[in-house]
Amino acid sequence: MSGGVSPLAPASFPTLPSVGGVRLAVYEAGFKYQQRADLMLAALPDGTTAAGVFTKSLCSSAPVDWCREILPNGTARAVVCNSGNANAFTGRAGETAAALTAELVAAILGVTPRDVYLASTGVIGETLPEDLLSQTVPALAEHLGDSHADAWHEAAKAICTTDTFPKGASVAGPGDTTIVGIAKGSGMIAPDMATMLGFVFTDLTVTSDVLQAALTTAVDASFNRITVDSDTSTSDTVLLFATGHADADALTSTSDPRYDEFVAALQVVSLDLAHQIVRDGEGATKFVEVNVSGAASNDAARTIALAIGNSPLVKTALAAEDANWGRIVMAVGKAGEQASRDDLAIWIGPEQVTDGGMVRDGYSEERASAHLQESEVKIRVDVGIADGAATIWTCDLTHGYIEINAGYRS
Amino acid sequence: MSGGVSPLAPASFPTLPSVGGVRLAVYEAGFKYQQRADLMLAALPDGTTAAGVFTKSLCSSAPVDWCREILPNGTARAVVCNSGNANAFTGRAGETAAALTAELVAAILGVTPRDVYLASTGVIGETLPEDLLSQTVPALAEHLGDSHADAWHEAAKAICTTDTFPKGASVAGPGDTTIVGIAKGSGMIAPDMATMLGFVFTDLTVTSDVLQAALTTAVDASFNRITVDSDTSTSDTVLLFATGHADADALTSTSDPRYDEFVAALQVVSLDLAHQIVRDGEGATKFVEVNVSGAASNDAARTIALAIGNSPLVKTALAAEDANWGRIVMAVGKAGEQASRDDLAIWIGPEQVTDGGMVRDGYSEERASAHLQESEVKIRVDVGIADGAATIWTCDLTHGYIEINAGYRS
Repeated sequence: MSGGVSPLAPASFPTLPSVGGVRLAVYEAGFKYQQRADLMLAALPDGTTAAGVFTKSLCSSAPVDWCREILPNGTARAVVCNSGNANAFTGRAGETAAALTAELVAAILGVTPRDVYLASTGVIGETLPEDLLSQTVPALAEHLGDSHADAWHEAAKAICTTDTFPKGASVAGPGDTTIVGIAKGSGMIAPDMATMLGFVFTDLTVTSDVLQAALTTAVDASFNRITVDSDTSTSDTVLLFATGHADADALTSTSDPRYDEFVAALQVVSLDLAHQIVRDGEGATKFVEVNVSGAASNDAARTIALAIGNSPLVKTALAAEDANWGRIVMAVGKAGEQASRDDLAIWIGPEQVTDGGMVRDGYSEERASAHLQESEVKIRVDVGIADGAATIWTCDLTHGYIEINAGYRS
Repeated sequence: MSGGVSPLAPASFPTLPSVGGVRLAVYEAGFKYQQRADLMLAALPDGTTAAGVFTKSLCSSAPVDWCREILPNGTARAVVCNSGNANAFTGRAGETAAALTAELVAAILGVTPRDVYLASTGVIGETLPEDLLSQTVPALAEHLGDSHADAWHEAAKAICTTDTFPKGASVAGPGDTTIVGIAKGSGMIAPDMATMLGFVFTDLTVTSDVLQAALTTAVDASFNRITVDSDTSTSDTVLLFATGHADADALTSTSDPRYDEFVAALQVVSLDLAHQIVRDGEGATKFVEVNVSGAASNDAARTIALAIGNSPLVKTALAAEDANWGRIVMAVGKAGEQASRDDLAIWIGPEQVTDGGMVRDGYSEERASAHLQESEVKIRVDVGIADGAATIWTCDLTHGYIEINAGYRS
């Protein structure tokens, strides 16, 4: 983690509850960072089911390829994550290192390697060193312990790279169950150190097909609605594990009335983690919500909202606390989705800026600017076509972003 | 124009030749700027044909809408351009102001308003003031003169906004004809002051359908292959006029052997102007050529090249002269076009970085970094699928970009 904590960070890391069956360990392996844990293991009990969502990058990393390959089994006994080295774009040697990692973890836990999920985050183009893996992964065994609050905190710190704070969230699931997640990421999504990773655990019993359906829905409404710089990592991964250790009936069908409850709870954790990633956006000084309504469809609304949220011109204006709504019009126009120029309505915070295709009578730039001086900013746009709506979250684009990304690695 | 000239600017404005039949005038109207000309008129002789290519923005400006409406006539007697006010997102009042501008120009030239092309560039959301138009447009008549070198220079300066230098180019056309172009733009394409405008003139006689075909082809190979910040203006416009004043046979068919010669010449002027716009990219310190080969199609190659050229992470690395090729892999991966990870080859300048899906044996980061210290940078990527190829041009992303765009308007 970097020195200065983001001004948008939560006051403290949350106190996360144990998830029955989950045991955690961290270790200072020294892949890149010194004097901090950079290796995290979550051991999972027999019967654990797994679901995963991965980067759409066509140049995905060796660990992502490994996870994609084992996911159809639907079972899991561990997830291991290292920070400092992404093991991405490393060819055959990277595949071998990934397989070795799974074998080493499997050996200490007495499970099959194909039940071991992998994640690596850090520099692209360097293979994970096999010697170091062989020396350090077995040491994790001695450190395994219950998933109590401190252990979650240590695990969340071990997976960080350029993050300025560790990220965790929890919520009660259906019945007397628990959902806990940890995540890392501080750009959406920088290719080197700012890959987005999320690991979510529940003690509910859920069949793997139902678990996958729930995760896909929750990710679509959370991690897939944030953007920091429009870039996509080779390693983005969200994994969800269900240990079945709670005293609750198994969730085996999406038509079970508890399914919607489970998805809603999962969304709470996912959205909390996703918002924390935006709050740690590289150089961010504003947490920005963009809401688009009146679009031809919900997908069209999301495309327009992301066009606004990804526009460097909108983001630099927000950094300057400048109510430069012309740049919002520009972003709507370039999104390529239907929008009625003559019905377009734009709000900056509570202040309506435009109405009927021009500046609203009585629009106050002072009121709009006052809203932009806050650290949490809302932009709302109605494009006047139909009922499609979507909300996305982003941050501003500052000198800090250039500083971090033009400076890193040099 | 701004104070400091881009470090990538040409040494001087070129000496542009007259184009038979074209008369030019500029005037200090005072739409926004003071003590500089901000209104430019090119009067065209009877028989002039016109072609145009406009922004794809769905929120296009009133002048763009006006030009689109009159373009099917295929004839032109004038083009008038003001800087400082884009007359965009101004509703009915903007349409009225646009029509008034055309009428005022038509009156001084004794032509029909529907032969008067319009362009406005500047702040969005403010209607062109009718009083000021009525007071200043007629004054242009007294200033009309031949299109000699100084007049082109004055015209190129009058259309500038955040540009740090005026942009012009010329080339010989088929036979003894001439093609001259002027342009403005310093972001691709900022919504306020950095709209891209290009006005190109030839004394060849060309029928309007052939002229349109030639312009579409030339723009696709030039203005549509540059990117500064991935944003799209509401006002982008390229217009081409053929006066027919040269002593050469009319070009009336795309199967005329001189057609290819004309298109090639037009591309030379268009690409020269497009490169000048990139060289004036907001905050740019590097002129960057991105060449992609081995793609599934030429369009796929262009998509991948633009993904690289638009990536904030690639652009900040270039600003830092950091041979961070992992970010190029990331950009290829996110482009969504077919790429063979295991055949991907990347060059930074003359230095081949990767081969066969990993770092090349003998790759020298020193040699790659040495290339990045130059002000003209070349990135080449072969994605190993088929024969599709494309080249695009962009610039780096620096603190200067943030400075200009977070500071403007405040």
